[in-house]
Amino acid sequence: MPKINEHYQKLKASYLFAEIRKRTQAFREAHPDARLINLGIGDVSRPLPAAAIQAIHQAADDLGKAETFVGYGPYVGYDFLRSEIAAHDFGARGVKVALDEIFVSDGGKSDSANLQEIFADDAVVALMDPVYPVYADTNVIAGRSGAADASGRYAGFVYLPCTAENGFQPALPDRRVDLIYLCSPNNPTGAVIGRDALTRWVEYARAHGAVILFDAAYEAYIADESIPHSIYEIDGAREVAIESRSLSKNAGFTGMRLAYTVVPKEATGRTAAGETVSLNTLWTRRVATKYQGPPYIIQKAAAAVFTPEGRTQVRALIDYYMENARIIAGGLERAGFAVYGARNAPYIWIRTPAGVTSWEFFDRLLDRAHIVGVPGSGFGPSGEGYYRLTAFGSREDTLDVVERITKR
Amino acid sequence: MPKINEHYQKLKASYLFAEIRKRTQAFREAHPDARLINLGIGDVSRPLPAAAIQAIHQAADDLGKAETFVGYGPYVGYDFLRSEIAAHDFGARGVKVALDEIFVSDGGKSDSANLQEIFADDAVVALMDPVYPVYADTNVIAGRSGAADASGRYAGFVYLPCTAENGFQPALPDRRVDLIYLCSPNNPTGAVIGRDALTRWVEYARAHGAVILFDAAYEAYIADESIPHSIYEIDGAREVAIESRSLSKNAGFTGMRLAYTVVPKEATGRTAAGETVSLNTLWTRRVATKYQGPPYIIQKAAAAVFTPEGRTQVRALIDYYMENARIIAGGLERAGFAVYGARNAPYIWIRTPAGVTSWEFFDRLLDRAHIVGVPGSGFGPSGEGYYRLTAFGSREDTLDVVERITKR
Repeated sequence: MPKINEHYQKLKASYLFAEIRKRTQAFREAHPDARLINLGIGDVSRPLPAAAIQAIHQAADDLGKAETFVGYGPYVGYDFLRSEIAAHDFGARGVKVALDEIFVSDGGKSDSANLQEIFADDAVVALMDPVYPVYADTNVIAGRSGAADASGRYAGFVYLPCTAENGFQPALPDRRVDLIYLCSPNNPTGAVIGRDALTRWVEYARAHGAVILFDAAYEAYIADESIPHSIYEIDGAREVAIESRSLSKNAGFTGMRLAYTVVPKEATGRTAAGETVSLNTLWTRRVATKYQGPPYIIQKAAAAVFTPEGRTQVRALIDYYMENARIIAGGLERAGFAVYGARNAPYIWIRTPAGVTSWEFFDRLLDRAHIVGVPGSGFGPSGEGYYRLTAFGSREDTLDVVERITKR
Repeated sequence: MPKINEHYQKLKASYLFAEIRKRTQAFREAHPDARLINLGIGDVSRPLPAAAIQAIHQAADDLGKAETFVGYGPYVGYDFLRSEIAAHDFGARGVKVALDEIFVSDGGKSDSANLQEIFADDAVVALMDPVYPVYADTNVIAGRSGAADASGRYAGFVYLPCTAENGFQPALPDRRVDLIYLCSPNNPTGAVIGRDALTRWVEYARAHGAVILFDAAYEAYIADESIPHSIYEIDGAREVAIESRSLSKNAGFTGMRLAYTVVPKEATGRTAAGETVSLNTLWTRRVATKYQGPPYIIQKAAAAVFTPEGRTQVRALIDYYMENARIIAGGLERAGFAVYGARNAPYIWIRTPAGVTSWEFFDRLLDRAHIVGVPGSGFGPSGEGYYRLTAFGSREDTLDVVERITKR
């Protein structure tokens, strides 16, 4: 038998959402008549924007005729989509991004998982805690950590705790790091990194030779005018930052799989011998070698999201979900919970009652209220004592969740 | 600046097809009026099967209504598709594959690139030569090779030459290897591995503790009744073989991105300490951590390919392309070329004239006949002196290519 990649053995239990699915399934089997409400995994519930549906029909017809059929597309995505992204997601905010700096992919999860591959095995990883588990897990698999302790903290990673005590704002690392994962608006806390704080991060990365992997998957939910939507709104960020975005949560594309990453031409890494290497060139090579681009149909649907009608429809989706966030946050606050997030993000981050762990609270809400959320500890050790609900449910389920929790 | 993954620096020039695209682009700019015929990259040209188009329209409508909307799907693919695969691609040939052994993905390229990740860094890789470049390139990036020599041969890999002299049949390795990439029908040579030879490979892997990564992307093109379509037709293969398939070339899904890999539950690897680990469990974990499954729409289209109408339409596509293969092979043979493949595969593998290298022949056909093929040396050192054309063009282009080459 061939030897396996041993680093997999270090991963704690199974991937968070797989574990939740398992417990939920067990509950369903034991209580087949219970009406479960799932505000756990951050999956949207509203239908796709009509502009996207229309584009899919059109694209399907393209593929049904020899004259308009297309096969393999560019590895990096079609220019018809990249130009919309450049114009609307960046140009509209005064940020210039060239088309060949945009790499269209099949999802934010893929980009979050894959970007680490172009860096050295011994790169030191810093990450917000709590945060989306994919950053940590994929770096564990790549061998950049030691074993995990009982709280799930991997040796070798630099954790940046974000708790109520520090306003969920990560402090600068206290030792040298190479890769810094920042997520703003943050999943799961819903906290945002303000302009001054983000400027400090960019300056830090420039001064210390680090690269920031900036996950802006939730930027469309930012309500406060002063908060940057892109890290490239900060001077000097192009040399040190890679930014990822997704259409999953704004346009409801979770089942469509479409995201993108920006790797500016100024961003560089170095070889062990000290030569400078363009990260844009390196990522281009990675993409060309391992990936073939998302389906034509999906890219056509994504491009339609940037049309005037598409943008209006996306705005309506975001408004709908943010009203859900207000309903949950308001209801739970009135019920006496300490509640965070929900203002610039579609996540409601709840302090569990004193002495109750995240998983205990998860099991309690599942058993007593038939609600599925996410235990905060699943997002990192500093998530212990918190619990996440999403605003992505239907209005009816959202109101029902508040009713069920406050009546308990 | 952070240190990069140095192994990228070992990769020869750029990815083969990117290099071809570059030279073709340069020719186009220099000769804007030339009518180029591209039988290079193995991209299909016929429209999608009508059953798939119809399924896309239906799936789009599902996503447009709240009652039928779906977001995130299973990481491993929907059972509605996995059950069709199990029944038609395997059950129909007497091979039993369980649904949780089937992992649906966004393409054969992704599977070919990613499977190596679950094995140890120091695994010894054996591969057919010439062959699809992704196997070698991704193992280079993973650090399993040394530098390349002038012919493009990476130190540390075990090459299994397949040339006219040995009937394009790879010999068993002459030293210990861990991972064996077999591709049958082979891209690019078009050669197939017969039942006896495949049995020898399975026995070899069982005896020597190796795993076979069997790429059957072109199995639908097998015409000879005696040739196995799946490695699991061979007794004992389930313990030592992982098989990948794709809908790209049979159902014309190159722009749709849909493939799958089978990892049997009996297949195992070992830790350095000698514990046995299920490769199915390991791959499940990899998929759950890094991937979210293909789009719902694409999986619905794929499932439609397995309906009676879908299968009839796919058969018509394959017949169309194989007629192209016969036209090219016959035409070039009459013109005096030594021609291989084209019988159980959609590739025509041509001996270049004496003393003419693969890239010279590529440039010559581009300059003189305005034809784009693929230089055989791009598929590995033993591909030097060969040139690949595909059968995936239109009938008109196919006839024209024969005309242009034979008239030269």
